[in-house]
Amino acid sequence: MKAVKTVKEVRNEINPIKNAGKSIGLVPTMGFLHDGHLSLIKRAREENDFVMVSIFVNPTQFGENEDYGSYPKDLERDLQKCKNAGVDLVFHPTPEDMYKNHKTYIKVEELSEKLCGMSRPIHFRGVTTVCAKLFNISKADRAYFGQKDAQQYIILKKMVEDLNFDIKLIRCPIVREKSGLALSSRNKYLSDKEKEDALILQKSLQKAENMLKNKENPQDIIKEMEKIIAEIDYAKIDYIKIVDLENLEDVEKIDRDVLVALAVQVGPARLIDNIIYEVKN
Amino acid sequence: MKAVKTVKEVRNEINPIKNAGKSIGLVPTMGFLHDGHLSLIKRAREENDFVMVSIFVNPTQFGENEDYGSYPKDLERDLQKCKNAGVDLVFHPTPEDMYKNHKTYIKVEELSEKLCGMSRPIHFRGVTTVCAKLFNISKADRAYFGQKDAQQYIILKKMVEDLNFDIKLIRCPIVREKSGLALSSRNKYLSDKEKEDALILQKSLQKAENMLKNKENPQDIIKEMEKIIAEIDYAKIDYIKIVDLENLEDVEKIDRDVLVALAVQVGPARLIDNIIYEVKN
Repeated sequence: MKAVKTVKEVRNEINPIKNAGKSIGLVPTMGFLHDGHLSLIKRAREENDFVMVSIFVNPTQFGENEDYGSYPKDLERDLQKCKNAGVDLVFHPTPEDMYKNHKTYIKVEELSEKLCGMSRPIHFRGVTTVCAKLFNISKADRAYFGQKDAQQYIILKKMVEDLNFDIKLIRCPIVREKSGLALSSRNKYLSDKEKEDALILQKSLQKAENMLKNKENPQDIIKEMEKIIAEIDYAKIDYIKIVDLENLEDVEKIDRDVLVALAVQVGPARLIDNIIYEVKN
Repeated sequence: MKAVKTVKEVRNEINPIKNAGKSIGLVPTMGFLHDGHLSLIKRAREENDFVMVSIFVNPTQFGENEDYGSYPKDLERDLQKCKNAGVDLVFHPTPEDMYKNHKTYIKVEELSEKLCGMSRPIHFRGVTTVCAKLFNISKADRAYFGQKDAQQYIILKKMVEDLNFDIKLIRCPIVREKSGLALSSRNKYLSDKEKEDALILQKSLQKAENMLKNKENPQDIIKEMEKIIAEIDYAKIDYIKIVDLENLEDVEKIDRDVLVALAVQVGPARLIDNIIYEVKN
């Protein structure tokens, strides 16, 4: 496995691979890798000749009062995990490498303003911009994203379609701790007590899933979810939404595939989780 | 020569070329081809194994009160010209093909708001968006642009750099009529009298060039240019600017490479022209 910091070094590695007609799988990450990331790498390893992982805490997707400065990092451990997982190339640039005198931003309108976009107005513009860069740098045939960031995947898929990137995006299932808590690098911010309390997220989604099977009214489902979140008095709901899986608009009844998504502040961490409910035709 | 309308058809043509390790040159146009376009095609033909020309009047780069609806078109003549010039592939999609349910826009901040961006606020966002699409569709190694749209070239070069597109942009000289008038599809809007009057644009630039050689003050140069434009009483100046060739900021003295650019409404047509003055070190 090679680990490089500059775009030029990536091109030197990637171009011979492309010229040989081999397939490239990209796993974009912000590092501090957990089993969720490793599941993406495993899938990329199965489906491609060459696997590149990027490790980059992307400044443009953090708002001014967010945790860019304190986002957890452990490059040495990440490199070891990548090596063990059979990664071919790790790209870990500096912010200066990626954003020297940068002026260009990509925005997917409408979709970027919903759900997490309501409280994080520049977040998805940063995500689409850095991913377009990574797609162009890696020349990947496939890129792997976790369903935990469901809105991110939906927005990136729209960007790929609208800008005609010749890349296939693959959505991989959420990986959870035994307790049910969705894995996240930000779980590091939580005490054991807070981690236990954070199980209200998954509990509310399980409730939603049962009610969805009975085609209950979305507003009623959201009310039940709110009740479960309210069991932890210090948890603050950012949003709970049941939306169309493609356009992220609120649905009035369950007559299509929906995303049930929520964001809840649990002590020091803003946590997100979701389920996708597919209506069987 | 093949002429196709869909992205899928382009990919069918382009992918075998790429896989064979051959180079691709792209000439993006809005059609109604003149000798300026043909000079780009000629250069592309010399430098690449395969040449693709796109013909697409791009709706997203026209403002509401601009000439999208009346922009001149002649596809049959364009195809014949491309064939004669040795083009391999013409891509002439419909607006529906290119912008179905489109939500994604690329903006190069600051640069897009200057010069033509002052009176055409969405213009360059449309140009960068459609060119990113064409770069991804064509997978070109090189793309060719005329210096007449100098700001367009500077903005696209910044986009390519910022988003790490692996493509080289090539700026080709302005092609002029014998009279000196810069070729433009929009010259079609002019009467013979207006064409003659429009020579004030080049005349003012020639004056500027002479004054630049003497390192005269930019403000004085602009005043002299304004005087020349004022010779035609119905000509309306949109802007006359002397700016840094990279960041498009006004310069206070001629101590670096500069762009002298102007936009003038001459009767029914808004005309642009420019010169680049390189300071010999």
